[in-house]
Parts: sequence; structure tokens; C-alpha cells
Amino acid sequence: MEITKLEPEKRQGLVVVLTGNGKGKTSSSMGMVLRAVGHGMNVCVIQFMKGDIYSGEWDGVKLLGDQVEFYATGKGFCGIQGNPYPHSEHRENAQQAIELVKQKMALGKFDLLILDEINNALQLKLVDLPQVKEILQLRPEMLHLVMTGRDAHPDVVNAADTVSEVCEIKHAYRRDIEPQPGVDY
Amino acid sequence: MEITKLEPEKRQGLVVVLTGNGKGKTSSSMGMVLRAVGHGMNVCVIQFMKGDIYSGEWDGVKLLGDQVEFYATGKGFCGIQGNPYPHSEHRENAQQAIELVKQKMALGKFDLLILDEINNALQLKLVDLPQVKEILQLRPEMLHLVMTGRDAHPDVVNAADTVSEVCEIKHAYRRDIEPQPGVDY
Repeated sequence: MEITKLEPEKRQGLVVVLTGNGKGKTSSSMGMVLRAVGHGMNVCVIQFMKGDIYSGEWDGVKLLGDQVEFYATGKGFCGIQGNPYPHSEHRENAQQAIELVKQKMALGKFDLLILDEINNALQLKLVDLPQVKEILQLRPEMLHLVMTGRDAHPDVVNAADTVSEVCEIKHAYRRDIEPQPGVDY
Repeated sequence: MEITKLEPEKRQGLVVVLTGNGKGKTSSSMGMVLRAVGHGMNVCVIQFMKGDIYSGEWDGVKLLGDQVEFYATGKGFCGIQGNPYPHSEHRENAQQAIELVKQKMALGKFDLLILDEINNALQLKLVDLPQVKEILQLRPEMLHLVMTGRDAHPDVVNAADTVSEVCEIKHAYRRDIEPQPGVDY
């Protein structure tokens, strides 16, 4: 069987939003990392609100080599039971992450930029809508920008090319099954 | 900041279903591959109905080394315009893939098994419901089984621990933007 290699007549960067309350937003963005690296593309991942609890992708991406830069900038889910850090500290972290995003975009070397949980960070007022809009405006035409997290802002949805809402039909934790490595983190 | 490493008191294999009409089912499963490899787990991916059109994850997973076995067993999306293969040929392929699934499950070496587009394959009668049920029954207790594709069968949803429906809110192709490498394939 012959294998077709698609090549779009017009290449362009896409804004992709993954939102909703179901499992599969961050993991979907990580799948795009794997896919993009396969195409020889350069990828940058900036995780908002994550950094306090180990997740398998932190080591997974290391195997992908120099094509991927990965930053877990946060201190966990702000306001969630058990998280000890005050809002101000979460916000300070997220503000630093915004600067990092602008810095990485300006380099012009990346083909895919993942902003994991930025929708959440906006909803929780760790970042402000004008900051997110500025990122969307500064995005180079050829850069794919992926924004994940619940409660995507309507202005973000409007600005996006592709938006998926990942809806929970069932989740193991509702039956008190603990998060399992490799699947949930 | 201290990094917590979660460890469930009870480890168990989960059945995860990713269905719906939106972008992010296969990519979500590929993200779990990256995550699982980070945890040192062994992964097997069997793609139903894919194999005729190159996708970046084919090369992406190669970078992950021996922890991942990857099989694209199909000849593309059966019945979709431009696909030249008759239903019988698609079915023959899918039937061979079912045998491969059983063979790989029986090895007992894998922690995560991805059956990409198997929901679709069932819906299109390339595989039969009793075959899918047999796979669910044969699944070792500690194996995570991920089943992707539109139109997941209600019996599959019932058997699953975690089910997400990825709903299309917007998709670039509706504005005649061609599929872009790294994001769409």
C-alpha cells in the first residue's frame, strides 16, 4: 500500500483550544507535541498552574530531545483543597509564565506552543484577559498555539480556529478510583 | 517548592474511551503514550483504519525507544471519499488487527494499550461487538486500555471507567483550512 504524505497548499498556524470538564485536554496537547516532533517541528510547552505534582509527561518529553522545551511554571491548582499557596503566589507565578510565553514567541524558533491550563488561569484571575489577547495578537502567523483548560473565555473561543469541548461522560474518580499513573498524570 | 509524587494505594488498569466528533481523541491517546513512557511503562499502540496517510506520531513514537510498540494496521477511513479500498479489504485488515490486539494482551508485558479508532471500526462493521467485548473481558486487570473513535458503542461506554466525549465547537476545516502537520496529523 502506498503511503500518502499530505502537504497543505497553504501552511498556516492554528489556534487550538481544548476546554471542557472531561479527561483529555492536557493529554491531547501532549499528543500534538509527539505528532509535531515527528514532523521535525520545534515545540515549546508552558504549563500554567502545574509544577507541584509530578506528571509522566515531564520525563516523557525529555526523550524527544532538543526539539522540545518544557516549563512547568506553577504551584498547582489554585483554590483546590490541599493546595497551600495563596492566590497572590499563584498569580505571581502565572504572571512570570506570561512573560515567558512572550519571550518564547518572540524567538521565532517554535512551530508549536502549548499553553497548558491557561484557560483555567484566566478564569481564576491569575492572568488577565488583555494579557491573553496580547498573546493572541503577538502570535506569529505560522505558529500553532494550543490553549488548554476548563472554562475557556468566550473571546478565546472566538479567536480560535479549532475548539473542542471535552465533556465528562464518566470518570473513574467518581467511583473513588485514585488517579493512575500513565493515564491521569 | 517540593514536588509531590502521587502513588495510588491501589493500582489498577482503567478502560478509557475517547469518543465524539471533535478534534483531540487520537492526540489525547498519544499524550497518554508520552505520559506512560515518562513513568517507565510499556506501551502498545494499534491503530485501526490508519496506515495510508502519514501522521507525525509515527515518527514521534520512534524517539520514545523500546518502551513503545506501534502498529498502523489499516488502509484509511473506510467509506470516506477518495479511499479506494472496498469494505471487505478494510474488514480483513481490522480482523487481523483484532488478532494482534489479543496477541499483544496475552504477552502481559504492556501497561498501556491504545486501540485507536476501534470505536469507528465497530460502527462501520469492520469488527463485531462480540470481538470488542472479548477484548474487554480478556484485558489483564492491571492493563490500561484506551479506545478511541467516534460513535463509541453503548456497551463499550458501559464497560469503561472513564469516558470523554470530545465535541466540536469549531473546526478549522469548516473554513476550508487544510489539515496542518503537527496539529491535525
